[in-house]
Amino acid sequence: MKRIRLTIAYDGTAYCGWQMQDGAATVEGAVKEALEQLLGEPVEVAGASRTDAGVHAMGNVAVFDTETKIPPEKIALAVNRYLPEDIRVQKSEEVAPDFHPRYCDSTKTYEYTITNTPIPIPTLRRYSHHVYGVLKVDAMQEAAGIFTGTHDFSAFCAAGSQVKSKVRTIYDVRVEEIPLPLEMQGSQIRIRVSGSGFLYNMVRILVGTLLEVGRGRRTAASVEEALQSGERSQAGPTAPACGLMLVGIEYGENDGTDKEQGKV
Amino acid sequence: MKRIRLTIAYDGTAYCGWQMQDGAATVEGAVKEALEQLLGEPVEVAGASRTDAGVHAMGNVAVFDTETKIPPEKIALAVNRYLPEDIRVQKSEEVAPDFHPRYCDSTKTYEYTITNTPIPIPTLRRYSHHVYGVLKVDAMQEAAGIFTGTHDFSAFCAAGSQVKSKVRTIYDVRVEEIPLPLEMQGSQIRIRVSGSGFLYNMVRILVGTLLEVGRGRRTAASVEEALQSGERSQAGPTAPACGLMLVGIEYGENDGTDKEQGKV
Repeated sequence: MKRIRLTIAYDGTAYCGWQMQDGAATVEGAVKEALEQLLGEPVEVAGASRTDAGVHAMGNVAVFDTETKIPPEKIALAVNRYLPEDIRVQKSEEVAPDFHPRYCDSTKTYEYTITNTPIPIPTLRRYSHHVYGVLKVDAMQEAAGIFTGTHDFSAFCAAGSQVKSKVRTIYDVRVEEIPLPLEMQGSQIRIRVSGSGFLYNMVRILVGTLLEVGRGRRTAASVEEALQSGERSQAGPTAPACGLMLVGIEYGENDGTDKEQGKV
Repeated sequence: MKRIRLTIAYDGTAYCGWQMQDGAATVEGAVKEALEQLLGEPVEVAGASRTDAGVHAMGNVAVFDTETKIPPEKIALAVNRYLPEDIRVQKSEEVAPDFHPRYCDSTKTYEYTITNTPIPIPTLRRYSHHVYGVLKVDAMQEAAGIFTGTHDFSAFCAAGSQVKSKVRTIYDVRVEEIPLPLEMQGSQIRIRVSGSGFLYNMVRILVGTLLEVGRGRRTAASVEEALQSGERSQAGPTAPACGLMLVGIEYGENDGTDKEQGKV
């Protein structure tokens, strides 16, 4: 028995998220089905990040156990033949039998893309959130710094989440403006967040709150207050799923810390 | 009677190109239909670039004549309500009655995007061409310089084209490498070409030829020879449509706009 780790990229547009649900198209379901077709044995897939409906990934991570004789690093190419073109396994490798993608220390990096133009741009509509009014990027950059560090992120977690501790560590939040051709009269704004773990909807609420800052409806001080309050109602709305991308997950050397990880 | 110029962005995936054809979904057809619904009068649309099936645009240009009393600059927003979400008019403005988007001097800029990774990346598949083997970007950059200037581009024109002169001027060809997250084990390569005009499939043949250079199957000297030969068979294959984007078209001083130098 070997444990195999997969790095998986997908276009989340057509899926009801990562996690398997009865009667719904999910990324986990598609990967499990493709592995079973390839290997001819039942497979249980455990994913690192249970991305929501419509959220994309370049590097989500999952593991499964198998008796196969296919060399671990060849599984990626082989399983892609059984997957739809909106899911592609990028890498496959053998890991220690006790490695678990959710219970091992990791750094996750998410990127949220905003297209800030007077009129939506069709080729950017699937992988970014369109915002009409001109955003104050420098104000967003200033406010973004507030999230860095270890905080109780209760105010930035979807109501109803059952997770025990809402303390998480964010290593970095970067707000970057990328120019678009002159005709578009605007730019793209990328918010890149990396941290040890994220609560349910945390990145999207963080972005929704920074968007209020960009629109001039909220100051950096009020973001600080929302964080302190621990009240979901004090933070901004949840930004739409299509702008969010799980860029990648990096694992440290330590295995097996039994730690909760939430859904983003 | 007023002549209105539109700047139009579209996702070409679902269309058989710009130009109207019986029984086929075309961008021109969709724009004409939306304008007629908005204005309640028959409309003839003349486009600047007749992009091929599957080619995208940020800033194609078209004109039409109208009796409407809607202020010219308001037409963009108004007509978008009648267009599918994969076409969006970015700008509308009145131009001189003799302005024609194809017969006035202009600089067109195209961008071709290649995703150069061992495995395709689902979120990049719609707007770039995937190439497996590692490309030699520096060799492509060197060979790209050959195209700059005024040349007979017969070798870089689809066979059967009826155009009289195949002499065109390319102002600039730039090959740029954009890093991707580490997990993807590769990069994106963007080839940006600007010129006074382009022959049928010219940018895609130029890219197909540079790809042979990147793969090490062709030297810069052989690109020079292909150009000199004037023979289509001496150049590389036509690169796929989905990687190509018409970024924008700039018209010179004599474009007949009533405004200062029209950046279109």
